[in-house]
Amino acid sequence: MIVNMSRNATQEQIDHVVERIKECGYQAHVIRGAERTVIGAVGSNGRRSELEALQAAPGVEELVPISQPFKLVSRQLRQERTIVNVGGVPIGGEHWIVMAGPCSVESREQLLATARAVREAGGSILRGGAYKPRTSPYDFQGLGVEALELLREAREETGLPIVTEVMSTEDVDLVSDYADMLQVGARNMQNFPLLRRLARAEKPILLKRSPSATVKEWLLAAEYLLSGGNANVVLCERGIKTFESELRNTFDLAAIALAKELSHLPVVADPSHGTGRRIVIPAMSRAAIAAGADGIMVEVHPCPERALSDGPQSLDLKAFAQLMEELDRPERTRARATAKV
Amino acid sequence: MIVNMSRNATQEQIDHVVERIKECGYQAHVIRGAERTVIGAVGSNGRRSELEALQAAPGVEELVPISQPFKLVSRQLRQERTIVNVGGVPIGGEHWIVMAGPCSVESREQLLATARAVREAGGSILRGGAYKPRTSPYDFQGLGVEALELLREAREETGLPIVTEVMSTEDVDLVSDYADMLQVGARNMQNFPLLRRLARAEKPILLKRSPSATVKEWLLAAEYLLSGGNANVVLCERGIKTFESELRNTFDLAAIALAKELSHLPVVADPSHGTGRRIVIPAMSRAAIAAGADGIMVEVHPCPERALSDGPQSLDLKAFAQLMEELDRPERTRARATAKV
Amino acid sequence: MIVNMSRNATQEQIDHVVERIKECGYQAHVIRGAERTVIGAVGSNGRRSELEALQAAPGVEELVPISQPFKLVSRQLRQERTIVNVGGVPIGGEHWIVMAGPCSVESREQLLATARAVREAGGSILRGGAYKPRTSPYDFQGLGVEALELLREAREETGLPIVTEVMSTEDVDLVSDYADMLQVGARNMQNFPLLRRLARAEKPILLKRSPSATVKEWLLAAEYLLSGGNANVVLCERGIKTFESELRNTFDLAAIALAKELSHLPVVADPSHGTGRRIVIPAMSRAAIAAGADGIMVEVHPCPERALSDGPQSLDLKAFAQLMEELDRPERTRARATAKV
Amino acid sequence: MIVNMSRNATQEQIDHVVERIKECGYQAHVIRGAERTVIGAVGSNGRRSELEALQAAPGVEELVPISQPFKLVSRQLRQERTIVNVGGVPIGGEHWIVMAGPCSVESREQLLATARAVREAGGSILRGGAYKPRTSPYDFQGLGVEALELLREAREETGLPIVTEVMSTEDVDLVSDYADMLQVGARNMQNFPLLRRLARAEKPILLKRSPSATVKEWLLAAEYLLSGGNANVVLCERGIKTFESELRNTFDLAAIALAKELSHLPVVADPSHGTGRRIVIPAMSRAAIAAGADGIMVEVHPCPERALSDGPQSLDLKAFAQLMEELDRPERTRARATAKV
Repeated sequence: MIVNMSRNATQEQIDHVVERIKECGYQAHVIRGAERTVIGAVGSNGRRSELEALQAAPGVEELVPISQPFKLVSRQLRQERTIVNVGGVPIGGEHWIVMAGPCSVESREQLLATARAVREAGGSILRGGAYKPRTSPYDFQGLGVEALELLREAREETGLPIVTEVMSTEDVDLVSDYADMLQVGARNMQNFPLLRRLARAEKPILLKRSPSATVKEWLLAAEYLLSGGNANVVLCERGIKTFESELRNTFDLAAIALAKELSHLPVVADPSHGTGRRIVIPAMSRAAIAAGADGIMVEVHPCPERALSDGPQSLDLKAFAQLMEELDRPERTRARATAKV
Repeated sequence: MIVNMSRNATQEQIDHVVERIKECGYQAHVIRGAERTVIGAVGSNGRRSELEALQAAPGVEELVPISQPFKLVSRQLRQERTIVNVGGVPIGGEHWIVMAGPCSVESREQLLATARAVREAGGSILRGGAYKPRTSPYDFQGLGVEALELLREAREETGLPIVTEVMSTEDVDLVSDYADMLQVGARNMQNFPLLRRLARAEKPILLKRSPSATVKEWLLAAEYLLSGGNANVVLCERGIKTFESELRNTFDLAAIALAKELSHLPVVADPSHGTGRRIVIPAMSRAAIAAGADGIMVEVHPCPERALSDGPQSLDLKAFAQLMEELDRPERTRARATAKV
Repeated sequence: MIVNMSRNATQEQIDHVVERIKECGYQAHVIRGAERTVIGAVGSNGRRSELEALQAAPGVEELVPISQPFKLVSRQLRQERTIVNVGGVPIGGEHWIVMAGPCSVESREQLLATARAVREAGGSILRGGAYKPRTSPYDFQGLGVEALELLREAREETGLPIVTEVMSTEDVDLVSDYADMLQVGARNMQNFPLLRRLARAEKPILLKRSPSATVKEWLLAAEYLLSGGNANVVLCERGIKTFESELRNTFDLAAIALAKELSHLPVVADPSHGTGRRIVIPAMSRAAIAAGADGIMVEVHPCPERALSDGPQSLDLKAFAQLMEELDRPERTRARATAKV
Repeated sequence: MIVNMSRNATQEQIDHVVERIKECGYQAHVIRGAERTVIGAVGSNGRRSELEALQAAPGVEELVPISQPFKLVSRQLRQERTIVNVGGVPIGGEHWIVMAGPCSVESREQLLATARAVREAGGSILRGGAYKPRTSPYDFQGLGVEALELLREAREETGLPIVTEVMSTEDVDLVSDYADMLQVGARNMQNFPLLRRLARAEKPILLKRSPSATVKEWLLAAEYLLSGGNANVVLCERGIKTFESELRNTFDLAAIALAKELSHLPVVADPSHGTGRRIVIPAMSRAAIAAGADGIMVEVHPCPERALSDGPQSLDLKAFAQLMEELDRPERTRARATAKV
């Protein structure tokens, strides 16, 4: 930590800061510049959060953190990449995978038709919501246990492992009985009681990035899971909130590349929520794979115009099959110009 | 709802949309323009979420909502303003009030000293965190029940009602035993299981705005509480996330004025989280009152530089007393120029 | 500047950075921590932009600036507040002032009626656009010289000094002939050729904040003016672009307080552009004054529904007069609750 | 345009709006709903900006635009994609191209070394700044005419056409004498006098997206160029400003896909400014091509740590050559998993 003293800080204030740094378990290095004094707090065994309160000490202008606040998720700690096994499907390894399915489980017919189509087209994992976080209390809130039963049936028929969202600590045991992977929704990324509970779950976790989280905050949310005992975490980028309102979110593909630089955890991308508009989903799926994502998660529905949630961003079964074919043939995309006109 | 058909929509597609609108329980009005056709879906008893899926129908370019999605919180439904009674203190009435106290309850001495100073300076409600949502798992997470006991003691001594955050459905009963008002933290604004549980609580709710929520999403979160049975809701603006990184958040004072236009619920402002820097808190407190807030919530600590959380945005006891004096004398602020130089 | 070396930086890389720091005219202080090495570059006469390129040197993780990049606008350089004289009206002194008028000058009748009403209600400066920056090429682009002539006439009749926007270096001389203050529009805040030209103008400058500028970038734009020779600069906050789309912009009142902390320049606020909706303008005008603004700038039009630009955010003459009355009586706003129910 | 009347609008207010719609040259269609009245303004020959002022009429809650405000840039007007010829290099056709070079032209050696390396690795167009927009007046502002001379020399030696920024209307003729393509920098995207002047230039334009522009605003800026007479416009996405501060900007790849849906103009991507960090540039270059960009623009410098601007985001010559090789072999990226573990 660097403590940047204000220009008119007194010697007494500087001494006080130095003393507090030592009390917090760090060594203090004072650099006197022409205009101001800067104090470095150095050491690996100090109490960081106590040190951070120094920002409120007299004469202090600003604290500048030097080391990253996350540890277990960091590539500095662990060089080799984590591979997470979801019901037999590895995420994060040599190949990328596809998770697909309806936003909400709505009926037996809807789910099974989708599951078969996902399997047929080459998808590896079936997604489907049983408990739905909805902005309005008047919107469809999911079928709950009935949906979990249908997901189990779909897995039995197709062999596809299941990922579904768990919204509440109270549902963790129940959902774990059915699902191969537990999803933390974007709005729950900083639901810390839920994270602490999931750290003790037996199943791998799909941790969606909050639409207002920086990459660092996202990694710190994962740190809750790893530090609590669950190392099987897959990160999922799904768009952030910005001033651009033409699409539902701004799909932050650079965050995928950055997260893979900073962390050893696998990262997948959700272009359905990331954009909210079917018309750009194929391009964004290709882009996510090219950016290094370990997989994509796509919403698929037999009849999007009758979907109870997220219809506008759902692909129908045919469009999904076509997308899968395209993704497998990147060399068919157009090539660089090699000569002048 | 207005359905905006794309320019090259066929007659068949238009007919299909008209039919679906009727199936959803609305009347359809077709307007044929020079360039495109627009279809109005009219009625008060239709199934809105089914209708919204039409965005995915062939030939549809865009759906444009006309009426607001919230009902019970709306001033259209209820003209008179709601007054929420918190342990004898009315919020939303003729006068504004001040909630103050430490970010976290850290010790008996810290809390009681603060509570006395808050009372002395004219504060009406004591705040203090027992369960703390922290971005990093390595930061101080709150004293839990021990803090609740101390808050009770502080109330007994000072007479100030208590507001404190509840983070989990499982804690609602426990925290309700101690607190006069239950706070939903900004990161839990869309924790729907928690909102549904709090809708059945006996205590009034302080609903903080998520740093990534629009005013509409904030009001829809309140709608969960009202539609579930708890009408005692106070909204709290505490800053949104934007590109401006000089302050912790961008304090959105216009949202206070707008929320009071759209809703009958009281709205308070938290300039401590809204800015994160002590130096601008007095100005932003004055501004919040001038903008029409029904109260402010301010973090106060006997020794901010030793606070276990939010030190940089906490006022010390003396600064708080001074702020209270200033707020009571708006006429002492400088006046408009009345003549030329 | 602090150079934060990566954890696995070699001694050779550290030595190279130390050498480069010296070449750039600074002293280098090396702090070796348990986990990494940090190097402070100290001195007041070094070449900062050369130093910044070090971020690209091998082994460097990050550069952390310690001192602010602006100088002449800073309160560290000049403690006393600047007062800018606009045609006899001081901005930044003991009192706050009001600039008002139509978004665009549309006709003689429109302008004179507005100017009289502004004068009558207590406004100090008349605003009115002659050259209008418009998002679409098909929108009204302003009356140009004809509007300047009308503004001159309005000043002659009412005595109110004139502020109007100049969009191009080529128009600076012409507009200076008519106006008492030259406005740099929000979209031109970083039009550096224009800033350099205005630095040599004889008239004071109203520098609007870009909707995507941080406070630091705004102050650096002002630094172009001061360093080029024009010290008569008034800053104007007018809202920033965020995810919140209910209002036209997010009005950043904390930026006013912050800019007045960092700089000695006067700061005014434009709640018309800052919110874009008439209904919240009175509340935001009061809030801006309470936040310490040296004045407000408000759009006024005799018939907003026929305005050629910005109708929805314009007050009519009566609403403006009422706003002025309210602003002069802050003590009439409601008071703090002093006792329990 | 749809006019959404407020719930308690009177019949008189509705009649007034209908009358104004007709005055503006449109037909009015009134839809009376259970809760409110909505009025459609239909027609292709009305005066849109007059109509928009209706938002300020009594009883009007909101105006909802139905048709897009841009025309000439729209794919609705022109189905076939535009190909822009830059000194013999087509942009927007069957193949994608690479523009590369230093941020600023700094010296003959620097530029020629870079130009040769760009040519060698397969780049098609040389970029290099002569006039530099810089946030601080104390930063390097470009070599001006000297840089233009060096760019001409580099073109003569390598055959690469030149793209360089023009910042001011006064420089358009001069820069046109040297460059094959004129760049409008991100901060000038809404410098309307400059756009109007460039609409009359003989050279094609590279129009960078402002970091705070929506896709619609970007297309409207292009509309200034097309409507003024210059149809040779290439759009360039270069990142937008968001709350995420880990990277310089948020690179908005979905905007590329969206712009290509809405417009017939070619779109290229600038991952150097889009991210600001060298480490993610290769991944983002691949992603941009996969997203459908017609080319990428990359900053290259022989010695980034000594660059006078943008060193941290510049590739050195070797890294650039490696990137080019990777981009030409998308099939070498990893494949989809085809079987379970």
